[in-house]
Parts: sequence; structure tokens; C-alpha cells
Amino acid sequence: MTPNALDRLVTLFSKLPGIGKKSAGRIVYHILDSSPALAASLSKELSSLHQAIIRCSVCGGFTETNPCSVCSDSNRDHSIICVVEQAQDMRIIEEAREFPGVYHVLGGLIAPLEGVSPANLTIDKLIDRLRTGTPKGSVKELILALNPTVEGDTTALYLQKILKSYPVEITRLASGMPVGGNIEYIDKLTLSRSFRGRVKF
Amino acid sequence: MTPNALDRLVTLFSKLPGIGKKSAGRIVYHILDSSPALAASLSKELSSLHQAIIRCSVCGGFTETNPCSVCSDSNRDHSIICVVEQAQDMRIIEEAREFPGVYHVLGGLIAPLEGVSPANLTIDKLIDRLRTGTPKGSVKELILALNPTVEGDTTALYLQKILKSYPVEITRLASGMPVGGNIEYIDKLTLSRSFRGRVKF
Repeated sequence: MTPNALDRLVTLFSKLPGIGKKSAGRIVYHILDSSPALAASLSKELSSLHQAIIRCSVCGGFTETNPCSVCSDSNRDHSIICVVEQAQDMRIIEEAREFPGVYHVLGGLIAPLEGVSPANLTIDKLIDRLRTGTPKGSVKELILALNPTVEGDTTALYLQKILKSYPVEITRLASGMPVGGNIEYIDKLTLSRSFRGRVKF
Repeated sequence: MTPNALDRLVTLFSKLPGIGKKSAGRIVYHILDSSPALAASLSKELSSLHQAIIRCSVCGGFTETNPCSVCSDSNRDHSIICVVEQAQDMRIIEEAREFPGVYHVLGGLIAPLEGVSPANLTIDKLIDRLRTGTPKGSVKELILALNPTVEGDTTALYLQKILKSYPVEITRLASGMPVGGNIEYIDKLTLSRSFRGRVKF
């Protein structure tokens, strides 16, 4: 009763992040129930995705043009580089419309247990950017926008140590209570960071 | 910084059930980070899905052959028809390996507020199946495996009424406490159904 083409697609969908076998089933049946146009557009976009999207040779983010629209935008502040773990973090920060500078995608975080060492990240490239500077003048600040996890902390400490000799200010995103959070339910570590990172009114 | 091809795919994925805009972004970046083979297989399966999968002319389920493997299986009990709302319910019941009979997909539930009337369902086809019988003899039981919701209850009552004149036993799936459930947290309606549907030890 379960046709093969359907099963194959369910298996493929369940490989995607956040999609279990049940959700994959629901999705495929939804596509079957929908107009064939949905399947056709999904198929078309997927088939050309890897050709259309490349990595920016400057920041390492995903782009259709090289350098990407951020790196080639002269209205942005090229003296501040926001260092992120992965390309999607760049997208999320861009959507917040908070950051006027440019980016650097590390391509991961240092995690010895998972076999990720500093050599696997784009740290050499970051140092190159600090050395050669950018069209708009040399880099003045590096904002480390890494997750407040063990791996993020380790990577931030490593970068701080290795970049000590460069005349660049290194900062990190504030860690503390999320907006709308409740002191009652916040974990102790986050609460402790909120205290240590407290700011003047 | 956000390329168009990427955005288009994120928009398409966020149209699928259970996938919001954030998950869609995660999925597309995952596909970009993965080997192009994943995107290629997804694209290929999606492009042929609507050609490969058709509706069984007997039960209405999705199938690659017509009639489907359940309807054409002479080892199954064709005297019991399990009536389900949609094709995916058939898949879920098949996976439980509990039901030896055949299926009938209604294609929805009666919901006047959403404009779904009995005429929109495959009720005529179900009556045809009761009239003409199946290769293995006439139908003896109809199990209504419809969700215990207002729409499911309405549809079950309607089917019971309209099929009164046919010599077929009509049953419904038991409704009550889920296995592993806790009386403390169960809603009153479910508890009341558990009492009314109580069974002898």
C-alpha cells in the first residue's frame, strides 16, 4: 500500500534538520494533495541551488555574486567585522537590521571532541583580512557573535589569544536574560552572566 | 547578502506543513552545506512525484499501481473496510499492522463552516462498494477510523444514518485515554468517553 516513490521522498525529507519521519510523511502527502506546481517549483529550485549559490570569497557567506552584496556595499562600515559561526547566522543578524558592518564566516566552532580544530576554520583568512585591511581602511573592531556555549566560548577565547598582536578591538555579543524572559525560570549560568555583564541605566 | 535563489527556496519550504520561516532557512542552509547529491535526489523525486503516484480507483489511497497493493491483495479481508479521512491515515494504520482488511479514503470530513459537504466526500463510491461487494464477497463491517473531533463525529453520524439500510455492521475506533496517559491531565471529554466506552476485564 505504500508506494516506493512516496517512501523515497519521505526518507529524503526526514534527513533534513528538524523533520522527523512523521513530519516528512505529512509533508509529502501535502505535496501530493497540492497542485503539481508546488512540487515542480521545489524541484526546479533544488536542482539549480548549488549552481546558483556560491560562497563569497571575502566573508565566506552564501551569495549569487562574488563578492557578496554585503562585502561589495561601500555604504557599509568595513572597519567592523562581525565573526559568525555559519552563513545562516549572517542571515539572521541581517534580518535584525542592527549591524552596519561586514561579516566573517568561521565555518564552525572549535570542538576537539568532534574533531574540529582551529585549522578547520577560516581563521587564517580572518587574519589576512586584518592584515590587508579593506577598501575603506583597516579593521578597527571584531565582534565575536558566537553562541554562548562551551564551543562558542572556547573559540572566542582562542581568537582573542591569537589576535592579541593585531591593533583591533575584540568584543563579544552580550550574554544574559532574553527579552521577555522570567528570572524565575532562567538558568543559573545565564543569571550569573546577566549580573557580571550588567549595564548602567 | 541574501541571494534570490536561496530566498525563493526558503519561501517554498515554509509553505510546507509544520515548517515555519526559521526552520525553512535552517533546511535550505543545511542543503547548501550538504553534498549536491541531496539537493539533486530531492529535486528528482519531487519532479516525478505526481507522475509516479496516482490515486487507487478502488479505495482512493495513493499508489503507484492501480488498484493499490492493498486493494489487489487477495490475502486481505475484503469484507472489512476501514473508512479514513485521508490517504496518510491509511499509511499510519498500515504501519501499526493491526488491521487485516481494506480501506476507503473519504477525502475529508464534513465541515459546513469550511464548505465541506457530504457531496465533496467519496461517500457515493463507498455506497457503490457496499452495493457491488468486493471479489471476496460482500462487505460485512465498516470501521469508521475518523478523528474524535467535531468534524469526525459529524461525519461518523452522517455515515451511520445514510448507510442504515445496508446490511453492514458499522463500528468506530475506541476513544479514550491514550496509552501512557495520566488521569490527572486528561481532559473531561476524553475521560467521559473512557467511562462510557469502558470494557470488561
